[in-house]
This record gives sequence, C-alpha cells and structure tokens, in this order.
Amino acid sequence: MLSFENDYSEGAHEKILQRFLETNFVQVPGYGNDPYSESAKEKIRAACQCPQAEIFFLTGGTQTNAVVIDSMLQAYEGVVSAQTGHVNAHEAGAIEYTGHKVMPLPQYDGKMKAEDLESLLKTFWQDESHEHMVFPGMVYISHPTEYGTLYTKQELTDLSAVCRRYHIPLYLDGARLGYGLMSRQTDVTLPDIAELCDVFYIGGTKVGALCSEAVVFTKNNMPKYFLTHVKQHGALLAKGRLAGVQFDTLFTDNLYFEISKHAIDMAELLKQGLAEKGYPFFIDSPTNQQFIILEDEKMETLKEQVRFCFWEKLDDTHTVVRFATSWATPEENIRKLMELL
Amino acid sequence: MLSFENDYSEGAHEKILQRFLETNFVQVPGYGNDPYSESAKEKIRAACQCPQAEIFFLTGGTQTNAVVIDSMLQAYEGVVSAQTGHVNAHEAGAIEYTGHKVMPLPQYDGKMKAEDLESLLKTFWQDESHEHMVFPGMVYISHPTEYGTLYTKQELTDLSAVCRRYHIPLYLDGARLGYGLMSRQTDVTLPDIAELCDVFYIGGTKVGALCSEAVVFTKNNMPKYFLTHVKQHGALLAKGRLAGVQFDTLFTDNLYFEISKHAIDMAELLKQGLAEKGYPFFIDSPTNQQFIILEDEKMETLKEQVRFCFWEKLDDTHTVVRFATSWATPEENIRKLMELL
Amino acid sequence: MLSFENDYSEGAHEKILQRFLETNFVQVPGYGNDPYSESAKEKIRAACQCPQAEIFFLTGGTQTNAVVIDSMLQAYEGVVSAQTGHVNAHEAGAIEYTGHKVMPLPQYDGKMKAEDLESLLKTFWQDESHEHMVFPGMVYISHPTEYGTLYTKQELTDLSAVCRRYHIPLYLDGARLGYGLMSRQTDVTLPDIAELCDVFYIGGTKVGALCSEAVVFTKNNMPKYFLTHVKQHGALLAKGRLAGVQFDTLFTDNLYFEISKHAIDMAELLKQGLAEKGYPFFIDSPTNQQFIILEDEKMETLKEQVRFCFWEKLDDTHTVVRFATSWATPEENIRKLMELL
Amino acid sequence: MLSFENDYSEGAHEKILQRFLETNFVQVPGYGNDPYSESAKEKIRAACQCPQAEIFFLTGGTQTNAVVIDSMLQAYEGVVSAQTGHVNAHEAGAIEYTGHKVMPLPQYDGKMKAEDLESLLKTFWQDESHEHMVFPGMVYISHPTEYGTLYTKQELTDLSAVCRRYHIPLYLDGARLGYGLMSRQTDVTLPDIAELCDVFYIGGTKVGALCSEAVVFTKNNMPKYFLTHVKQHGALLAKGRLAGVQFDTLFTDNLYFEISKHAIDMAELLKQGLAEKGYPFFIDSPTNQQFIILEDEKMETLKEQVRFCFWEKLDDTHTVVRFATSWATPEENIRKLMELL
Repeated sequence: MLSFENDYSEGAHEKILQRFLETNFVQVPGYGNDPYSESAKEKIRAACQCPQAEIFFLTGGTQTNAVVIDSMLQAYEGVVSAQTGHVNAHEAGAIEYTGHKVMPLPQYDGKMKAEDLESLLKTFWQDESHEHMVFPGMVYISHPTEYGTLYTKQELTDLSAVCRRYHIPLYLDGARLGYGLMSRQTDVTLPDIAELCDVFYIGGTKVGALCSEAVVFTKNNMPKYFLTHVKQHGALLAKGRLAGVQFDTLFTDNLYFEISKHAIDMAELLKQGLAEKGYPFFIDSPTNQQFIILEDEKMETLKEQVRFCFWEKLDDTHTVVRFATSWATPEENIRKLMELL
Repeated sequence: MLSFENDYSEGAHEKILQRFLETNFVQVPGYGNDPYSESAKEKIRAACQCPQAEIFFLTGGTQTNAVVIDSMLQAYEGVVSAQTGHVNAHEAGAIEYTGHKVMPLPQYDGKMKAEDLESLLKTFWQDESHEHMVFPGMVYISHPTEYGTLYTKQELTDLSAVCRRYHIPLYLDGARLGYGLMSRQTDVTLPDIAELCDVFYIGGTKVGALCSEAVVFTKNNMPKYFLTHVKQHGALLAKGRLAGVQFDTLFTDNLYFEISKHAIDMAELLKQGLAEKGYPFFIDSPTNQQFIILEDEKMETLKEQVRFCFWEKLDDTHTVVRFATSWATPEENIRKLMELL
Repeated sequence: MLSFENDYSEGAHEKILQRFLETNFVQVPGYGNDPYSESAKEKIRAACQCPQAEIFFLTGGTQTNAVVIDSMLQAYEGVVSAQTGHVNAHEAGAIEYTGHKVMPLPQYDGKMKAEDLESLLKTFWQDESHEHMVFPGMVYISHPTEYGTLYTKQELTDLSAVCRRYHIPLYLDGARLGYGLMSRQTDVTLPDIAELCDVFYIGGTKVGALCSEAVVFTKNNMPKYFLTHVKQHGALLAKGRLAGVQFDTLFTDNLYFEISKHAIDMAELLKQGLAEKGYPFFIDSPTNQQFIILEDEKMETLKEQVRFCFWEKLDDTHTVVRFATSWATPEENIRKLMELL
Repeated sequence: MLSFENDYSEGAHEKILQRFLETNFVQVPGYGNDPYSESAKEKIRAACQCPQAEIFFLTGGTQTNAVVIDSMLQAYEGVVSAQTGHVNAHEAGAIEYTGHKVMPLPQYDGKMKAEDLESLLKTFWQDESHEHMVFPGMVYISHPTEYGTLYTKQELTDLSAVCRRYHIPLYLDGARLGYGLMSRQTDVTLPDIAELCDVFYIGGTKVGALCSEAVVFTKNNMPKYFLTHVKQHGALLAKGRLAGVQFDTLFTDNLYFEISKHAIDMAELLKQGLAEKGYPFFIDSPTNQQFIILEDEKMETLKEQVRFCFWEKLDDTHTVVRFATSWATPEENIRKLMELL
C-alpha cells in the first residue's frame, strides 16, 4: 500500500548501504574513534563553517534531546520549550526522567516567540522567591517544528539574543533539519544555525540514514567527559562506525542537501495537487510535512488505499491528518496519490 | 594493522548488509511494528523453544541492561551482581543513574556462586532492619562472563532455584551469548537459558550485527507498557527494521550459531598456539576471549605490530592482556599472529 | 515589625511544646514506631471516619508531594495538576527530580475543572500514539488552593468520579487543610475528603505545628514498603515522636479545628476591614490568605511598617500582595494593621 | 523498660525545649532566614575556627548525605566509601536514588585506609578506559564510624592529602560527631575536621536535638543555589527556626560538648562494667556505642528486661549486640543494667 505516513518508512540511502559494504571488513576502534566518524565530523564542521565545532553521534531524537539537555543543565534547571515542542509532548517524559522540568511557552504555528521567552526569563529573575522555582536553564526549539514550520533568520537571531542576554544556551532540534534548510521559503542556512545556536543536531534518521543524529556544539561548550554522560544514558555505540559511515556519506558531495531538496520538491508537488483539488490546509507548512483537514468519512475511505498519519480531531466530523514526503519518495507516488484523492 | 582488540572491530555479516539492500525501499511501520521484526521474533521464539517469549530489540549492552533492570525493579530494589559484572564495573554508572544500587557479590572466575546469593538473600530477610536497606530485587549474571568463562547447566539451575525461592527474577546478560553457546566446553543450550532465566538478551553487536540486542522475557513477564519505558530511556528506534532485519537474518539458517562457532574455532586455534609458545594464561577461558600474561617489555614490542586489549596490571613487570576472536576473524590472521608471537 | 507575610512565621501551638516537655524522657522506639505516633494515627482515623486509613508522617509540603507522587506512580506516568498547582510552580522541580512530569491543566481561581480533566484523559487514551507520551497517572489538587479558594463538595465529587472512571488516584494537598475545613463558605468535611480522595495530607507546618504533615491513604492503597520509599527520599525521621507528639496534640480535643477556626475568624475580620477601606481584592478567598491589589507607591510605604507577601505584578503601577492570618494571629494585630492601612 | 537500644530514644535537651517556648511567638522569616539560624551559624563557625564556613541545616543523616553528595558530584561521578559506610549499607539506596554509585573500599574496624583510597584513584586514572567507568568524585567517611571507632588525626591528614592530590572533596559524616570529639581516646578536634575536610556535618538528632544536622562547607565550596538543591530534594524546612533554635542552643555555653562528654562518661562506665563481668567485646569502641558478643540464650533472657540493638549473627550460637549511651542516659540506668547482666 502507498504510504505517506512519515519520513522514516524506508531504509537508508543506497550510497550509505554501499559504503557499509565497502568498509565492512576494515578493522577500526570502537566508540566513535574510527576514521569514518572523524571524516564525517570534518565534513560537518566545514558545512557549518564552524571549524571549532565539537560533534558527537547519537541515535534518535528522544535520546539526543535527553542526553544533550541533561548534560548541559544544572540539577536545578529546566528547559524552556514551545508547548508543542517534541520534548514536551511526544517523548514519553524522557526529559523529566532525567530530572529536569520542561517549561512550556505558548506556541504560534509550533514556534516560540522571543518576547514570550524574554518575559518568562525577566519574570523569573525578578521574582524574589525564584530560588524556590525551577531555573530556566536552556531554550529548546525545533526547526522545522512539529508542524513543519520554520523560524526566519530574524526570529532565530532574536531568540539567540535573548538567550545570550540571560546566559543560557539555545538548543535547536534538527530532526528534519535537511528539509528545513532546503525549503523554498527559508532564509536560514546551516552556518546561520551554527552561529546563532549554542548546540543543535542534524537529524539523520529522517533524512536518509538508518539511524543516527549528529550533535554539534558550536561554542567550545561540549560538556566535560561527554562520552561518559552518553554511556551513562545507554547511548554510546560500540560500533561507532555505524554512525560515522552514514554521516560521512551524507556529507559527501552534498548528498544530505540533495536528498532533502528532493523531499521538498515532492512536498511542493503534493501541496500543489492538494490545493488544486480543494483540500483545506490546517497550517501552511513550507517543508516535507503537509497537514490537511479531512471529513471523517472521506478519511475512512482513503485509509483503505493509502497510509497517512492521524494528527488530531478538529471537530466532530473532521480530522487533521499529515502526509509526509521524504528523501525516498518517488514522484510516481505523488501522482498515484493525486489519482486517489 | 592486525587487530585482536575486541569482537566489534568489523561491520556486520555480509548477509545482513545484503538483506538491507533487498528490503531497503519496502515501506514499513516504525517503532518495531515491521514484518522483519515480527519474523525475527518468531525465529528467536523457535530457537529458544519458548513459544510464549516476549521479545524487544534494543541497542548495546549498557542500554539493554539499564532498561531491563530499571523497568523490572521496584524503586526500593537493587540488582545483585558478581563484583566483576559489567553493570558493576564498566557501564559508567548507568544502572545507578536509573536510581538502583548494584549489590556486589564475590566473583570466582567472573561467576557468582548460588550459595553466596542465597546467603545474601537469607541475611537480608532475616535482618530486622531490612526495610532500611536496599532490597535485592533481581540477579544479574553474564554468560559468557567478562572473563570469557561459562556457567555450567548445574550452576545455572542452582542460581535459578535460589531466585525462585526468593521470588526474584534471574537476568542473563548475553552480550556474547553465541560464543558461549558454541563453546566446546558447555552443556548449556539456548532453551536451557530460556527455561532457567526470567529474562535474558541475545547479543547482536558482538556477534555479527552492526548493533542491536534481543531481549527475551520468558515468563509472560515483560513489564507493562514496555515500549513506553524504552522510549523514556531514549532507546526506541524509529526505524525498528534496523534491528528486525539484522536479527531476522542472524536467526535464518542457523547463521548466528555458525558464525559463533567460527569464532570459537579461531579462539581454539589461538589458544593452542599460545600454549605451544608457552604464554601463561591468566584464566582458562572456553570462549572467544583469551587472557594471557605478558612481560611489559614484550607487550610494548608486540603493540607495534598487533592491536590487543590492555586488561590489568598483574605486577610491576607483567600485564594481563586480552586477545579476542569474532565471527569475522580470518584463519589467516591467527597464523600471522602466531608468527609475530 | 507586624507580619502577615505567611502562616509559618511563629513556632508551634503551646500545647505541643508542653507535650514535648512532658514526654521528653520517655524512651520510645524510632522511625515512627512510638506510642505518640500510634495514638495520633488513631485520632486521625476517627476524625476522618475512615477506620482503615493508613497514615504516615512526613515533613513539609514539597517533601510530602514528592514522596507520595513518586511512590504511587509508575515510571511512565505523570501527575495532572492545575497550572497554578504548587507542584507545578513553586517546588523547584522536586516532582520532575523524581522522574515524573507534571501535566498542567487550565486553572480557574486556582482550581481544576472536572471536564478539563476528563477531556485530557479521553484525548490521551483515544490517541493511537499514546504509548509515546506521558501517561496521566494521578490527579493533584490543593485544597485550599494556592489562591486560598476551595472546591465545593460537588466539584470534588465530580473530580473523584472522573478519576475512578479512569482508574487513577485523586490526591489532595492539604498544606492548609484546617483553614479550608473551617472556612465559613465550605460544604466539604474531613470525612468527605477521606471518601472522595484516594490519598491526601493534613498539613501541620502551617496549622500549629513546628513541622510535619500527615499523609492519609484511604483505600488500603499505601505503596508496599512505603517506609523504604520514604527513607530512600531522605524523609524518614529517626525521632518519629517529633511528628507523633505534634499530631497527637493537634487531634486531641479538637485543637486542630479550633485553631484553624481562629485563623478564619481573623481572616474574616481582615477581609471586612480591607473591604471597608476600599482595597480591591484580587480574588475572593474564603480562607486565611487574602489577596489585594495595591498601588506600587502605597505598597512601598506600607512595607516599612508591616511585612506581607509579594504575589505578582498586576500592571506597571499595581501589585498583587498577600496577607495571611494563622492559628497564631492575635486579634490585636488585625486592629493594628487596620490603623496602618 | 530500660533501653540502650540507640541514641535517639529520648526527645531533646531541655534547654532546647525551653528555648522553643521563649521564642515561640516571635515572628521570623522562613526557610532559614531567621535570627536563630544566623546566630547558630556564627557560633558553629567560631567553634570550628573557620570564619568563612558556609552552613546549612538539614534533617537526618540519610537526607544530609543524599543532598550533600548529589549536589557536589558531577553526574558521572560516584562517592568512595568504606564498605560498612552508612551510605553504602543502611540508607535504602538513597545515594543511588540520586543517580550516583557508592564505590566501596575495604573497611578496617569501620575505617577506610588512605593507601586503599590512593590505590583506587591511581588505578582509575591509569586505566585507559576510565571514561567507561564511574569517576571517583568524592570521599565519604563517618566519624565516629558505624562501629563507634575513630580516625586519628594522622589518618585524617593522610586521607585529606590523597583527596587534595586528586582534587576531590573529603566529606565527613558526623551523625555522632559530639561523641567522637569527646572520646577519651581521640586527638581530633572540631577545628582539625574543618581544616582537613572539605565538607562535614555536625549531627544534632543523635546528640541532644529532636532533629537537624548542620552541614559545614569549609572551603567556600557550597554548591551554587544550594537552597534550590535542598528544596528539590524535599529537604527545605519552612520553619527554619526549628533547626536554628536547636543548634543555637547546642552551641551556647558549650552545651553540645558537655552533653557529648556525659554520654562518653556513661559509655566508659558501661564498658568497665561489661569488662568486669567478662563479656567479650566484638570491637574496641572509644565512643558511645559498645558492641559485645552474647550467647543466644543469654540474649533471649536479657531481652525481656532491657532493650538493646541486634547487630549481626556471629555464629550459630552467638550474636553481636550493641548498647548505646547518649546525652540523656542517667548514671542510674548503667547501674541497673549492671545488675541485670
């Protein structure tokens, strides 16, 4: 059955699998000390135009968020997130499991506003009894957000400025970063992110890899003994080459960006088709996730022929659903979907 | 350079990589609900002769130990382990990070004795103030142990009997289980383990996979909402196929056992060679890890030509080192090593 | 200086101190196994008309909330609270420190609505991906709330019914329970609370004791080995008599209720005086905490003569402040305050 | 019935109770910002000859150990303790609950040897794979130990020197510190401890107070926002005066030392009596805890007339029991006990 359920339904880009085969019997040290990981890090530093970047490979968004947030916060600090942030809503309490509160702010199309953030920070520090409360110790944003939306460069700059004024790090969750960077409606580049954020991750799992995400610390601020933190969280790969080979391949010859662009091209085709057929959009998303509103009856019929993702009930007779394209979506599938709709 | 440093220096068995290629563009659901995972579980149940077994795939020994132990223990319980148990010594405090004490018992060639365990449990429950202490809530053993040694079927049966008498689960860490099962000196089979243990894992990372371990709950005792526990620990793979394809391949046509047998054959060759050349053994290991005692000078010379693992200082002039074979060790490498020694 | 800053500015009711003196040299067992604790528990059971109640004494609201919530929740569960709930706002992340999320609901004068709760629970269980989210595992309410307001018996009954429908416990934080029970505008009695809630605590620290709160489990639902949970949280008193003597005295001859009534009488005098002088109230509180709106200039002048509690900035020129009466407030102090205002 | 069960069977020194009465209605700020706490801190600083000492009052040994250790350690660090250390054996896993491993060393009459400590630290840092293990981040000793024994000044100096060489703090658990300082066989003074340790606590609960212990940070090393750490652990008293009044009284006119001396005098009487009657000692304790070996039959008879503490089974027919004196033991009780024995 045709599936637009998510962007992790297929395996990995074939060049990655080929590279696994080619390098398979080279004996290399474990725990990330292999030449593939080293090479991948060099290429990522170059792509970020951030030669001092410290990079570590982890597996999956929830793991990455938990390890980064827990290792960068003091025990008495929490992390500020838009209410719809993945860490607040869809990670089974993995952040609270590490002992830290997620401090929610209002969301606007999935995004946090710099003025809301500033207000929270100002109110906290002005409150005479703030030592009895959770200290806001880090800001978490996702880009693209859970709704597929993107921060503008100005918005990122403003958030970054507030963070610096209050001496707390800005952390960007880039689970779908490639799709954000290759959106036709963005003015944000990878070097911008490296400059404006203190730490971020480049998602691999949803952008062509079987697994693995690259955490990038941009300001010589990787926590001391980070490998030990990672191991303590059960997140250290014995065969670090698994991540290394994947990211080395993705950052060779622009592959990460090209396959991300393909997903965006497919999303734009899909978007155009949906618009032409008169499906109402729930939100205007410039990336690979498209949210439309379906009558429940229509939805039930459609379910028999194509897989998509239930998002939320809108009212008694309508539902918001998500269609996602990815690096692996063939153009033919878009055409087939259009016929079904 | 020739390496006998460990059993995770190479990638994965080529049949696994081939299978990745073959299945790469099949669209499947995430989080372990894919057909490859289902098929792998069926095959593992059959190999264990345990049709009711509940199986979950995780990544890496430390992660697996932390998730299994934390999700099966009550908050006030700890896990009993031989002093040399991996959870007690080499996992960066990952168990304590989840809030549970590792309660050490004396070790004999890396193994725990049933009488020591019984004595600890008896003493605990007889102590009138035991509510002020950590409750022993689970027993952890590794098989093969960190020293490459193996429990006999009688020893396992005795440990299991003590656990049942005190109503606590027996957990077996099988990071290198294949090498244990194919040892020439064992009377323990996979079905024995499934019968005598309440939970155990079949290690993939060190036995032919790129990553992934299969946790097997044998007594209808998988913790409720285990997937949520796993996600909360940051251990849930979005692309569950990564584990599924690997274990499905390993448990097809006996592959897991055949490649394990190869490692044992290589270890026996190595052992014989070492003995012939007069190297003293630190311990008599019947599996793929061989521990010998080297004069420090000899060790320094050898280091320039072959990679092996520092184990511990024996005295001022001698060091214990480890040579490991694996599923990937070519017979030629053993010959080359023999020439060097 | 005159102080209405809070309800914990004085020591303890003198009858408690006298009882310390009388019992001081009686040798009794530790950890709560003393006759004073036993007697106090009997009296509390009688006052609650709940003969099967299991009771444990802890110290302070934050400690009590953390121990109760952590010991009653499964690892993957969180606690639902009104956004203004003490556990969500003013406990330095003590709940998250134990690994559990506080799941906020809208507040109405500090209270949670049964329909909001039902909606959250229904939405959670209907969501197909709920195993990726935090399970709502308990409901936390405070009575009186942080704003001094009270649930009606009907409101409590409705919340209780929702909790039972979804099989999760209802927990009532009674840090100021005495003041709630003796309010002139309540129809809720202590036996009502024991019937409708699954667990609650009777606050001592703010109602006449030096420290100590009495946790009451009403449904034979005290977590197994609760003493060990308590000790693990560092909350077990060696000299359990400290709590026992205090609660035994408070629940002898109705003392807890009489001194609470006194605080309410004082609060009503204060309220009447403030109203007569035309001070606008921020909220209509029927208990010992009164919130009024002051012009900032007026506030600064007043600060020099009387201590009160900053609550929050209302706008650029006005501030909400709190005046609290207590068991210890002399009527004379109300008169003095009225002269100042 | 006569009781020598422990040193917390009575209430508090009467001067403390009198002081509660005298100060009861003085209105003071909460959370330790009261004048009694300030005065107590000044007096403790003077007694320690450590004018820069930072002091915080907590309640109970387990709570104090958990808060101090957790707030001073990095996430990847554990605390080194003699195997018999209270944190390792009798605190229900309260340290592990905070995420940190207790790293046991051999004990000699309850004490740790500097050379064992040095060896552990040296081995750790020399091990090439130490980033995969728990970092030893603090040393915990108790003085008196759980066996009533004491470190000599030389032993403390040696431990302190090792700690400084490895840049980790030395923490002394002084639950019974008064009894240690007033022992007839010690050369260690309170200023010695303040100089040699980085942090320690002066026990109140077992030395004349109802509750409360005074944590002393001696090297300007109190963790930042320590009050917030304390609150997060549920350990912050609203009525800080409860601790303040107690310690202010104990450190006025040498009271803490005088009542400790009384306990020692009683212990020496007891010891002499036991020796004269030919009871074999299990260990030679110079403080208020005396351990003797009883035939099981004798023990059962004795139990009917006097309370003492079961310590451990020695063999099939003998048991080690503990008799404890305290600040509250009347000389008459020693005489009565001697008649019974």
